[in-house]
Amino acid sequence: MIKIGIVGGTGYTGAELMRLLARHPAARMQVITSRSESGKPVAELFPNLRALVDLNFIEPAIDSYRDCELVFFSTPNTTAMSQAEELLASGIKVIDLAADFRIKHIPTWEQWYGATHACPALVEDAVYGLPELNREAIREARLVANPGCYPTSVILALLPLLANNLIDPKSIIADCKSGASGAGRKASVGTAFCEITESVKAYGVDGHRHLPEIREVLQTLNVDADLVFTPHLMPMIRGIHATVYADASGPADQVQSVFEDYYRAEPFVDVMPAGSHPETRSVRGANVCRIAVHYLAAANKYVVLSVEDNLVKGAAGQAIQNMNLMFGLDETAGLEAPGMLP
Amino acid sequence: MIKIGIVGGTGYTGAELMRLLARHPAARMQVITSRSESGKPVAELFPNLRALVDLNFIEPAIDSYRDCELVFFSTPNTTAMSQAEELLASGIKVIDLAADFRIKHIPTWEQWYGATHACPALVEDAVYGLPELNREAIREARLVANPGCYPTSVILALLPLLANNLIDPKSIIADCKSGASGAGRKASVGTAFCEITESVKAYGVDGHRHLPEIREVLQTLNVDADLVFTPHLMPMIRGIHATVYADASGPADQVQSVFEDYYRAEPFVDVMPAGSHPETRSVRGANVCRIAVHYLAAANKYVVLSVEDNLVKGAAGQAIQNMNLMFGLDETAGLEAPGMLP
Amino acid sequence: MIKIGIVGGTGYTGAELMRLLARHPAARMQVITSRSESGKPVAELFPNLRALVDLNFIEPAIDSYRDCELVFFSTPNTTAMSQAEELLASGIKVIDLAADFRIKHIPTWEQWYGATHACPALVEDAVYGLPELNREAIREARLVANPGCYPTSVILALLPLLANNLIDPKSIIADCKSGASGAGRKASVGTAFCEITESVKAYGVDGHRHLPEIREVLQTLNVDADLVFTPHLMPMIRGIHATVYADASGPADQVQSVFEDYYRAEPFVDVMPAGSHPETRSVRGANVCRIAVHYLAAANKYVVLSVEDNLVKGAAGQAIQNMNLMFGLDETAGLEAPGMLP
Amino acid sequence: MIKIGIVGGTGYTGAELMRLLARHPAARMQVITSRSESGKPVAELFPNLRALVDLNFIEPAIDSYRDCELVFFSTPNTTAMSQAEELLASGIKVIDLAADFRIKHIPTWEQWYGATHACPALVEDAVYGLPELNREAIREARLVANPGCYPTSVILALLPLLANNLIDPKSIIADCKSGASGAGRKASVGTAFCEITESVKAYGVDGHRHLPEIREVLQTLNVDADLVFTPHLMPMIRGIHATVYADASGPADQVQSVFEDYYRAEPFVDVMPAGSHPETRSVRGANVCRIAVHYLAAANKYVVLSVEDNLVKGAAGQAIQNMNLMFGLDETAGLEAPGMLP
Repeated sequence: MIKIGIVGGTGYTGAELMRLLARHPAARMQVITSRSESGKPVAELFPNLRALVDLNFIEPAIDSYRDCELVFFSTPNTTAMSQAEELLASGIKVIDLAADFRIKHIPTWEQWYGATHACPALVEDAVYGLPELNREAIREARLVANPGCYPTSVILALLPLLANNLIDPKSIIADCKSGASGAGRKASVGTAFCEITESVKAYGVDGHRHLPEIREVLQTLNVDADLVFTPHLMPMIRGIHATVYADASGPADQVQSVFEDYYRAEPFVDVMPAGSHPETRSVRGANVCRIAVHYLAAANKYVVLSVEDNLVKGAAGQAIQNMNLMFGLDETAGLEAPGMLP
Repeated sequence: MIKIGIVGGTGYTGAELMRLLARHPAARMQVITSRSESGKPVAELFPNLRALVDLNFIEPAIDSYRDCELVFFSTPNTTAMSQAEELLASGIKVIDLAADFRIKHIPTWEQWYGATHACPALVEDAVYGLPELNREAIREARLVANPGCYPTSVILALLPLLANNLIDPKSIIADCKSGASGAGRKASVGTAFCEITESVKAYGVDGHRHLPEIREVLQTLNVDADLVFTPHLMPMIRGIHATVYADASGPADQVQSVFEDYYRAEPFVDVMPAGSHPETRSVRGANVCRIAVHYLAAANKYVVLSVEDNLVKGAAGQAIQNMNLMFGLDETAGLEAPGMLP
Repeated sequence: MIKIGIVGGTGYTGAELMRLLARHPAARMQVITSRSESGKPVAELFPNLRALVDLNFIEPAIDSYRDCELVFFSTPNTTAMSQAEELLASGIKVIDLAADFRIKHIPTWEQWYGATHACPALVEDAVYGLPELNREAIREARLVANPGCYPTSVILALLPLLANNLIDPKSIIADCKSGASGAGRKASVGTAFCEITESVKAYGVDGHRHLPEIREVLQTLNVDADLVFTPHLMPMIRGIHATVYADASGPADQVQSVFEDYYRAEPFVDVMPAGSHPETRSVRGANVCRIAVHYLAAANKYVVLSVEDNLVKGAAGQAIQNMNLMFGLDETAGLEAPGMLP
Repeated sequence: MIKIGIVGGTGYTGAELMRLLARHPAARMQVITSRSESGKPVAELFPNLRALVDLNFIEPAIDSYRDCELVFFSTPNTTAMSQAEELLASGIKVIDLAADFRIKHIPTWEQWYGATHACPALVEDAVYGLPELNREAIREARLVANPGCYPTSVILALLPLLANNLIDPKSIIADCKSGASGAGRKASVGTAFCEITESVKAYGVDGHRHLPEIREVLQTLNVDADLVFTPHLMPMIRGIHATVYADASGPADQVQSVFEDYYRAEPFVDVMPAGSHPETRSVRGANVCRIAVHYLAAANKYVVLSVEDNLVKGAAGQAIQNMNLMFGLDETAGLEAPGMLP
């Protein structure tokens, strides 16, 4: 059993890591830290884990993790960057579910995250943990930057099109709709039930941190795109629906099989039949990105519909997928449960 | 008091008409018909109207409306077209909240609605009831085609841009999100609570009836656009959020004042300050379309955010606004109530 | 026009007061105070009020209200008690929507609210603002204690039974279900969307502040009841559904007409036909308490179902009803709008 | 692997059976029937099962199940009773998730279900599948009547109190709140999203089919109680919250340990610490009934709070728990996943 530590286990991605790891066949949670809840049983905060997770939160301190083989950071941004170095030096692998290691270009990161990066040297080593893009590198990685929830859904929607030069990259628009758990578990008026339910709004139209992340990943594919990315907040807990538009730059009649071929071997990307409209609920709780591609002849545009559970394929599930790869396990271990519908 | 008849009062637009008319200072509901609920008190079906609407549903028959000055059709498509002629002949004005008179080009209508039009001659007479576009014609109209909910939100988002030649019409994408009441009040698995809540999906990506309606309205403005229109279903009752994208075709620095100037005199279009993100809940129950315009310099695109209550400015409220115009009343009569937030 | 001040306009009851007062025919909001939002336009916080409420929040200070004839406190508990005296001394009437003046027995109040009462002498003067119980006293009152949301729904359910000696008061159980707006507009994890939606829980089973309030009101009716009161939190914004149980203490065959007779003249209590099950949505946004009474012969118990909008008849609407009485207006002024359904 | 047939796989309990069985270590779905969807892939109706359930719906016919060892009926009431006999005669075990075999007293069943029972003789053989009550009988059963969702939550709340004579059975009131999935997957106006969300209502106050079921189970415990049972509909998909009241009939100081002792060995009943308020979301998707007991000294009453997922411990999960017992498997096989929170 791989011995696991979780830093910052009181948020939604932390809770989701624990929900998934509680039944993982080859990993055992050993340490879960939280500054604010130190001393409290994990199952008191998350009663769904009663009888399944027996640990108490403890103070976060480097020493706490000394018996771990892997530490997940499910912390706010800028936490992992100050602790990863020491953990790695002790031979402990690290997966950061926050954004500290996602962007290679340090000035870009510093501009969007409003902080000086604490360990720029490590950023170069970090592997962007999107298995569909970087599987082999992840297997060898000591430090994985787990992708953002929006970038996962948008990049997976675009990969087959870009790999086959089917679109004009300058034309990409990603109109994304996310459930409220993406904002994290926190005390704020803006995330209150009465503020969110029965309403829809866009936010960050003029700039969102996931935009430079997507753009940089596309650049590694030699695609230079000032894409438009518009996130919207939906009155639901889980789920991202990315609606991605792009101008077709060639014949479109093979696009369905292009997608099917591209993802044929992927365990966690599901290309739906032509004409489909995937629902976010079909992936609720599951580590799956479900995709449908449409071609609109009159406008000569593709519309790709891509859904995921932002807490699973968009965060904790993908982190475990990365863990499985890093430790030579079956990539799907602990991640086979179907989505919960209804 | 204007004497009002409502044909098909058992759906959500009918219920909303009654909610708004119940307190209208110059209109009185006289007749509400329903084939399925004939004989039942209106307030039994809609208990919010107890003590406010005293009528029983009666059988729909031309004779039922003989004392009315105006009849609203809040019926399924293809109902109004078979009855409007006779009503008009009796001197009764008609507002159709369904789609029978929205599209002038009969073959287009017949293709999208899968029926032969019963009175093509009347279609030419009908005025498309978007007051911000056709106010003067509505004042004189005997027959008003009340716009679709999506077209209202999309057209209002585009008008200032098109009127000022600020965009390339070929580039328009309208990514729209609607609450479930847009699907009407009906028995179907697809609209069941457990199918809708906690989920988001696109639908009709390859073609939706509101697309030819928008396209034809734009053509009347001499804009020929094969725009992309993607409707999505949201887990909420009321509200449409249109996110409209278009390539800028000139300098963008005046766009905020362009919008403010364009709608300055409009009682029911509210241009928000630069940088805003309107929420659908801010117009819940209110006859308002609230708009914010963003310009993205890197991509040289506009993103217009436009919200309305699909049952009010997108249906019943706009119908009453049209009624007010047709009968020489204050355009805002009965429509002044603020949105219900929270 | 009555000149109105609102202290603490940033919460949900404050927002609801403004929504209702914005269209009141005989009252005009003059001053809205907030310590935290001082200087900000009201409509920036509550965009549904754009173009309807033109005021900015200002600092709360006694001087701010000097031109007002009436001041509403929609503040947290313990605020009104420190300011009411000075306002009353200046001839300004006061309605407190919080709990400072609801309980006459000071030691009980101090025990449940964990504070020393700042003006016990005023408490005696205050009138408990339930018009169905205290209409005449309210007309003469300078200081009204607006009832709690739960007590309104429970007391209105019980009044006809108690007035006619139809139940054993020792047997009363009030199982109440409330929407989340009852918890107020605040930053807390517990009221976050992801914590509330898709879940139901009881809270305060061992004691809730509305219990002594109900108990004391019943004592004024010479009923001594250690009633059981169990509040539950529902995943919805607005609405209270009280399910009130009591043992029948005599023949039950007249109970429907007992309720109908008791409330026949009441503009805001609606007794539904025998066998009905009222829905909270039927009163959404409306100043109505809708009641159905059932008698279960086998168990010899009554079950009274009572629904209200906790922000309207349970708070701001009732406060305006009290204002109307205090100023000799038509009791229903500004409160006639039907509930919003769907 | 036990070979499984499912009759009526298109409803929510059928879908939930498939979700849980898809990952069961010792059972394999072989046949899933549906009259209405015959020929269609299961995963087309329930896309969460894509790649996990490869079957097509087939016509229901006795012959379809000939290779099965166990058949689940997740059909409307009155279906199983007409087919069970033939299956049992072929040596196939049966678990009915509907109500055909839950009530032993045939006239009572016929009165509440409005039908003549097709095989009264079999009813006597059927075992009421509440493992916490009938574990040994279930192990030997050929035919199990899976309990209703409400009865499971109410009976589990009452068992420790009744077994220890701690309450007056005549005083029991069960005020129950259920999510909308309890009404099944069907086309009806009453279950539409816009009718259910943002509202709460009671239903069946004067009599609900689960009342005679609870009453008869209590009678098997020699408890004769005309209990009051009031179901309420909540705006959420999954979850039942039973709030059960009863008069204490003796000293109450041991009640917490009475509950803990009673359920200590039970894998799927979780007694929470004293003073707790369980949330339905803590059991979402999990086969757990979570219980907290409160004693109110002033009223001398117990209040038991009991939550379950109506589709899991209230239906499909309990059915699999019964299957595990009938086939000598570990009782928890396939049922260990934690609830999904948030």
